[in-house]
Amino acid sequence: MPGQTFSIDLNSDVGESFGAYRIGADEDLFPLISSANVACGFHGGDPRVMERTVTTLARKGVAIGAHPGFPDIPGFGRREMHLSPEEIRTDVMYQIGALKVFCDAAGVPLHHVKPHGAMYNMAAKDREMARAIAQAVINAAPTAMIYAQAGTEMAHAAENLGLRVAYEVFADRAYLANGLLVPRSQGGAVIHDAEDVGARIISMTRGEPIATIDGAPIMLRADTVCVHSDTPQAVAIARAVRSALDVAGIVLRAPE
Amino acid sequence: MPGQTFSIDLNSDVGESFGAYRIGADEDLFPLISSANVACGFHGGDPRVMERTVTTLARKGVAIGAHPGFPDIPGFGRREMHLSPEEIRTDVMYQIGALKVFCDAAGVPLHHVKPHGAMYNMAAKDREMARAIAQAVINAAPTAMIYAQAGTEMAHAAENLGLRVAYEVFADRAYLANGLLVPRSQGGAVIHDAEDVGARIISMTRGEPIATIDGAPIMLRADTVCVHSDTPQAVAIARAVRSALDVAGIVLRAPE
Amino acid sequence: MPGQTFSIDLNSDVGESFGAYRIGADEDLFPLISSANVACGFHGGDPRVMERTVTTLARKGVAIGAHPGFPDIPGFGRREMHLSPEEIRTDVMYQIGALKVFCDAAGVPLHHVKPHGAMYNMAAKDREMARAIAQAVINAAPTAMIYAQAGTEMAHAAENLGLRVAYEVFADRAYLANGLLVPRSQGGAVIHDAEDVGARIISMTRGEPIATIDGAPIMLRADTVCVHSDTPQAVAIARAVRSALDVAGIVLRAPE
Amino acid sequence: MPGQTFSIDLNSDVGESFGAYRIGADEDLFPLISSANVACGFHGGDPRVMERTVTTLARKGVAIGAHPGFPDIPGFGRREMHLSPEEIRTDVMYQIGALKVFCDAAGVPLHHVKPHGAMYNMAAKDREMARAIAQAVINAAPTAMIYAQAGTEMAHAAENLGLRVAYEVFADRAYLANGLLVPRSQGGAVIHDAEDVGARIISMTRGEPIATIDGAPIMLRADTVCVHSDTPQAVAIARAVRSALDVAGIVLRAPE
Repeated sequence: MPGQTFSIDLNSDVGESFGAYRIGADEDLFPLISSANVACGFHGGDPRVMERTVTTLARKGVAIGAHPGFPDIPGFGRREMHLSPEEIRTDVMYQIGALKVFCDAAGVPLHHVKPHGAMYNMAAKDREMARAIAQAVINAAPTAMIYAQAGTEMAHAAENLGLRVAYEVFADRAYLANGLLVPRSQGGAVIHDAEDVGARIISMTRGEPIATIDGAPIMLRADTVCVHSDTPQAVAIARAVRSALDVAGIVLRAPE
Repeated sequence: MPGQTFSIDLNSDVGESFGAYRIGADEDLFPLISSANVACGFHGGDPRVMERTVTTLARKGVAIGAHPGFPDIPGFGRREMHLSPEEIRTDVMYQIGALKVFCDAAGVPLHHVKPHGAMYNMAAKDREMARAIAQAVINAAPTAMIYAQAGTEMAHAAENLGLRVAYEVFADRAYLANGLLVPRSQGGAVIHDAEDVGARIISMTRGEPIATIDGAPIMLRADTVCVHSDTPQAVAIARAVRSALDVAGIVLRAPE
Repeated sequence: MPGQTFSIDLNSDVGESFGAYRIGADEDLFPLISSANVACGFHGGDPRVMERTVTTLARKGVAIGAHPGFPDIPGFGRREMHLSPEEIRTDVMYQIGALKVFCDAAGVPLHHVKPHGAMYNMAAKDREMARAIAQAVINAAPTAMIYAQAGTEMAHAAENLGLRVAYEVFADRAYLANGLLVPRSQGGAVIHDAEDVGARIISMTRGEPIATIDGAPIMLRADTVCVHSDTPQAVAIARAVRSALDVAGIVLRAPE
Repeated sequence: MPGQTFSIDLNSDVGESFGAYRIGADEDLFPLISSANVACGFHGGDPRVMERTVTTLARKGVAIGAHPGFPDIPGFGRREMHLSPEEIRTDVMYQIGALKVFCDAAGVPLHHVKPHGAMYNMAAKDREMARAIAQAVINAAPTAMIYAQAGTEMAHAAENLGLRVAYEVFADRAYLANGLLVPRSQGGAVIHDAEDVGARIISMTRGEPIATIDGAPIMLRADTVCVHSDTPQAVAIARAVRSALDVAGIVLRAPE
């Protein structure tokens, strides 16, 4: 298809610093991504960090999403917590509202919502939790997208409630033939080579199948690619990926 | 002035329960007041309590305000904290945003903002803090009013930034001739007799002077009267005051 | 066996108030129990409440235990959290140390440790968590007892590490023939009649079998009986139970 | 005095990391200091960090102190809070107890207590707060020393209650002729040259006068020298100071 231009979104978690504590490499990542998930104070972030992050992202034209998490700063939102649907729904609404005020003040829309850490993982499988999160988005930011893996309970819940979903892929993770991620506990679950990662994103962006760990190729719907920010190599990988996309003529663009 | 109808606002702090902990007598107060200050999770309140409180207030037609406080649940926001203007401004924006989302979901406007506890008292005297709070309201809810005592730094800062101010009086507190409250440490600072309290409100509502502790009468601008919610007698006093206003033909109405 | 005197321990959760928030009916329960589980600030309680509670219990001769919970004030420690064994062990050590200092200051020993809420329930079934808790007690208070249900992972872990265990029963809960509690979701799980509850305690204290919901009688090892403190009827039931024990000549005594 | 050996203590704040957040350069500082102030979870630190820090310090033979702070993780304990003496006393007892349990488990004594940040600064001038802290140490760790600047309310309160005091000096701060620190807001308040800092410590250790900003020399009682850990240059300065002391034949030793 000569002349066709493909586009993809790179998203990353940012704004997770807290008080005197610094984490992540936000300033280095900002030029490399097209959308960002901003912590809302429950697992990381604080009102100062939120304001500064939103202001900077707005200036750089990066689309801003809320990144709500469990109320667990000591565990960075990575520990499973069993909350009632009402607790999930209202905790997520609260966090969206808190972030939205900084978007409003910066004159930019709240583009999307992506649950953080253990909440993201649990909501992929837990129908009640997924529904509570989707309901929170309907209540608090009905025009925002949800970032979710295709085929998960989170994606289904968002689809059922009529929310717009951006389907997310993990370019540095191996997939099973059924479209799910290879568990981290298994060998080969994480792809460390930046070139491989870049090549996979390019394939997914062009709608081409990628290899699975089982051998069989698979087609993944990819609207947005998660770029990790929490490893020492994060920025280097992001830079390599970004270069590969530029070379391949793929345009970086937040999903619409 | 025969036929003239006077109106006044009665406001009270509500929604300060937290998790398994109950505080205040919200359900009893709701029918007696015309506006309510809803805790936003920093000194009290949590997302469940916020949603339920806002929903109930909306149904009863009580005007809803944000009641931001210091980040101090163990101290209930009553302990002085020395925060930078940036910390004050962003903490208040965050709390306003969090509450606003529940107002939006309930289809009612955020009517006003009233700082809580130690923040209220400090902002009355501290120009920088007052300005930071007023700036937060401009940023986060520019159409909302601020509740403040006339003549305080908080009132001046709000006036200077063009915010609408509802001037607040304390009907159960004695005043000095200069318009300030008699400090609680001084004898006669608190008026315990509900009949006296009612009579003072009626005078203030009609624009008549009230007696000060120094003897000289004083004219106070009264748009809204604070009805305490944190003493065992709170509801009884509120009921007596409300009856007295009804008998005097004074209409209860949130300031506009 | 004429002349034989039986004794039993009644324990209750106390000191769960927090800042401006009051919960429970501590003052009413203190005269009725022989040991108390004092919240340590993670799910409830604060240093003021801890000091006052320990001082009062010491004066009344009630044995004092630490009641560590998950770090979750908004959820009152009743929400499951998935922590690593290291997180459990160090969180429990921290809480024991914090309470112990108030025992030392009051000149009384730390008598026992009883995990709170979701941690208690999870540790009954989760071997790793149970081991982490037992290890924390070994590290932080090796002479203290652990309160645990017989046959649970918590009891096994404590036994394996050589800790002294006081076996706990729930007099207001129905049992299955296998010695486990009837789940609360099932009909008849909770026994509401104070007379029944008292009779069951007397049987258990005397080493007699009690009826199970399945019909077959069962022998339960009962060193300590949990007296709930979190329902409106808690104090009334505790009073009735205490009277029944007095009438039956059963002595109230903390386990040794 | 030929042959006389002088000794001094270098202390530093450590263990202030928190959950996923890392702060400070603990591992680099450990070999350079003779005593350490370990955060207790209120302004920084968590039970994992506390255990690891205490274990490492014990292995290296560094004396361990509790470093209690205000309950203010977002502000890192650097924001003034106005707490009642009862709140100060019980918050400090709680923190001492929590740290002590990890010392007990590691088989080392709790050597000292040094208040952190805003609490340290306020207690230098506020008699009631100083007394509350001293009382907490008496209650919770009567054999521990207090680190305090000579002439402050904190030092007086500790002396009056019979606690042992190690008098602390700040080698990288200029002094006024009255023995107080030059306020940071004033020019020349901080000494950035590591050689100067080293020379001043050597003078103070030998009981020689040092120059003040006013010109007049002053004698300062120096039992322990604060080595900052929170600036990028902290480790470099500490290394330079340590070398200078070694060259001068001054022995590093925790106060007794």
